[in-house]
Amino acid sequence: MSTVAPADDAHPDARVRAVFDDIRTTRGSDFINNFWRYLAFDADLLEATWAEVKRVMATPSALDPLTKEMIYTAVSVANGCGYCVHSHSAAARAKGMSAAQYAELLAIVGLAGKTNHLVTALQVPVDPIFDADATVRQS
Amino acid sequence: MSTVAPADDAHPDARVRAVFDDIRTTRGSDFINNFWRYLAFDADLLEATWAEVKRVMATPSALDPLTKEMIYTAVSVANGCGYCVHSHSAAARAKGMSAAQYAELLAIVGLAGKTNHLVTALQVPVDPIFDADATVRQS
Amino acid sequence: MSTVAPADDAHPDARVRAVFDDIRTTRGSDFINNFWRYLAFDADLLEATWAEVKRVMATPSALDPLTKEMIYTAVSVANGCGYCVHSHSAAARAKGMSAAQYAELLAIVGLAGKTNHLVTALQVPVDPIFDADATVRQS
Amino acid sequence: MSTVAPADDAHPDARVRAVFDDIRTTRGSDFINNFWRYLAFDADLLEATWAEVKRVMATPSALDPLTKEMIYTAVSVANGCGYCVHSHSAAARAKGMSAAQYAELLAIVGLAGKTNHLVTALQVPVDPIFDADATVRQS
Amino acid sequence: MSTVAPADDAHPDARVRAVFDDIRTTRGSDFINNFWRYLAFDADLLEATWAEVKRVMATPSALDPLTKEMIYTAVSVANGCGYCVHSHSAAARAKGMSAAQYAELLAIVGLAGKTNHLVTALQVPVDPIFDADATVRQS
Amino acid sequence: MSTVAPADDAHPDARVRAVFDDIRTTRGSDFINNFWRYLAFDADLLEATWAEVKRVMATPSALDPLTKEMIYTAVSVANGCGYCVHSHSAAARAKGMSAAQYAELLAIVGLAGKTNHLVTALQVPVDPIFDADATVRQS
Repeated sequence: MSTVAPADDAHPDARVRAVFDDIRTTRGSDFINNFWRYLAFDADLLEATWAEVKRVMATPSALDPLTKEMIYTAVSVANGCGYCVHSHSAAARAKGMSAAQYAELLAIVGLAGKTNHLVTALQVPVDPIFDADATVRQS
Repeated sequence: MSTVAPADDAHPDARVRAVFDDIRTTRGSDFINNFWRYLAFDADLLEATWAEVKRVMATPSALDPLTKEMIYTAVSVANGCGYCVHSHSAAARAKGMSAAQYAELLAIVGLAGKTNHLVTALQVPVDPIFDADATVRQS
Repeated sequence: MSTVAPADDAHPDARVRAVFDDIRTTRGSDFINNFWRYLAFDADLLEATWAEVKRVMATPSALDPLTKEMIYTAVSVANGCGYCVHSHSAAARAKGMSAAQYAELLAIVGLAGKTNHLVTALQVPVDPIFDADATVRQS
Repeated sequence: MSTVAPADDAHPDARVRAVFDDIRTTRGSDFINNFWRYLAFDADLLEATWAEVKRVMATPSALDPLTKEMIYTAVSVANGCGYCVHSHSAAARAKGMSAAQYAELLAIVGLAGKTNHLVTALQVPVDPIFDADATVRQS
Repeated sequence: MSTVAPADDAHPDARVRAVFDDIRTTRGSDFINNFWRYLAFDADLLEATWAEVKRVMATPSALDPLTKEMIYTAVSVANGCGYCVHSHSAAARAKGMSAAQYAELLAIVGLAGKTNHLVTALQVPVDPIFDADATVRQS
Repeated sequence: MSTVAPADDAHPDARVRAVFDDIRTTRGSDFINNFWRYLAFDADLLEATWAEVKRVMATPSALDPLTKEMIYTAVSVANGCGYCVHSHSAAARAKGMSAAQYAELLAIVGLAGKTNHLVTALQVPVDPIFDADATVRQS
């Protein structure tokens, strides 16, 4: 159940088809997942979002691809986005996440959920040592 | 500003002092951050929470210590826990996070925040291929 | 899948039927969406909630009806309420939201999701100029 | 640091002063906490919100006053509202919450935070037995 | 639609079967809800989580079982966990929650959702009287 | 208290100074708010984020500038980002938001917070009429 209709491969807008092509080339797979098919209701939004995902997630960088997907999954869980949890858990697996790593990811996410709630309940004040800004001003 | 008062090192409850000692030993540092000092208002909660944090975060496992802290930080950001963001960002740095890795962590967290909102706004249906349960039932 | 059963038009409680009638009159439509049918499990909650929705959303005011529905949709996305996203996106369309306006609403919601996460990750301090309270106290 | 300036007791609007008087009478205390002083920037919002708080929280009902405040605190923690956590934790204490009850409240809130994250991470399907609607339709 | 496959009663891992047995004994019911069947993908996570749920929720304590389940439900609503809302609403009913109590729970949860948003929108400063830490330091 | 130190106007990186210059030119104001000064710890993140904010928020489009800022504020409230609430409330005021419009914005945000919670608590099923995708498939 969605608020817009998905785009199929024969979409009349050449910009939409070009993004789909680039997704396929970048991923080396013919599969286009639903996020892109629904986001295609607006070519600007599709192009800009794909460009950012490609730059942040599909470019060699200071973090390895699996770590990136686990971070993405963790945020998606905390934000309660079911679709995103599915797609990034699947991506993490595709990039080599083992069953043990997945269990550990969940243990950390669950523990963070718990301590985040405890800290907020107690309104714990930030230790002065954590303040990077103060550190700089003092030096 | 907190809802309870913090425990100092001379806390009358031996269980509280024992947890503080174990935190120091485990971390190889004399510093006890505020979370533990405030959580000490209840010895049961302090003991159980520290035992879980020690088991999940301070035991050699399938994920390296830096990756764990970045995942913890990511969840804390999404949950809006300022104290937790500070303490786990600091922990990640202490475990070797470079400036480039930190920038990338934020780029992923920000991008996930954005696509999580887009997916929720569009109510994108989950692609059947993501359903591990169905996969198993079909086989 | 719900935690209560929905009320149909022949509900035995006259207060429930009266709210349903007022919804139809206020909206000029025979359609009662599920939110009201399920909320009807408690006549007090139904009456009070409808009275507030009618006052805030269906009374001529300082904001036009379309702007109101877009704000409502934006909050519902951020809160991860799928049903609410559907019902208020539909209401915004019924009040004239164009495809371009919808795409822009999503671009803003997505961007806010991203910068909200970045600000929380960085724990950016509030600029003194934003503090209305301080402004007043200083004058 | 706020987005509006607070109202003092000599506020020129009689409606604001009347709400402040009713808060004092209802609570049997001279103290008006900041929420009401800041919400007073708009008399309509102040009146409507106080009327609802008074009806839901300060009227004898099916739940006792302490249980109500603990539920309010729990929601405020999960929503990350620091001010609300403070004010409702204080209200719960004023209504008799013991140290043991407070510790248990936090243990439940922390545990729920954790299992909420685990369930979302796993995308656990709802057991058919939980669906009140289906139960009704089947009978 | 889930990210892992559920465990049935004939699971090969004796630790999983032992947890299932303990759930049945503790609850006095043969029914194992899906959360446990899906969490069983990792025996460590299953054991640790069940141990905590049993300790916090199923041990006689300073709060009665119904109050605990209502608090759990409230947090689950605020965190947007649909499955958890279902399972803990059902548990609260099983522990005696009346229709009037359920309606009141929802009235409080809804009101807290509203005032949490208002407070965050206004950025209301915490009243000094709420600061337990300052109280202690001043004495 | 922040996790990084802010950039001043004499930042050694020409890319940072160029973004600051473009912010000043675009806004017709010498003031650079803290978000940009702290985000400047990474020139890539600063450039990409400013480019997106400029494109979405500072380019004439299908929504007027005041409506955009109110939507941005609404999302920031729901996400609990205090800094963002401050900066976008101030921006909305700078773009002409009246006191009455601000009060109404808060009334809608508060009401949405409430009904979002009620809908999640009840797990209301989406009315088939809201499904744009089904509509298309049926035609």
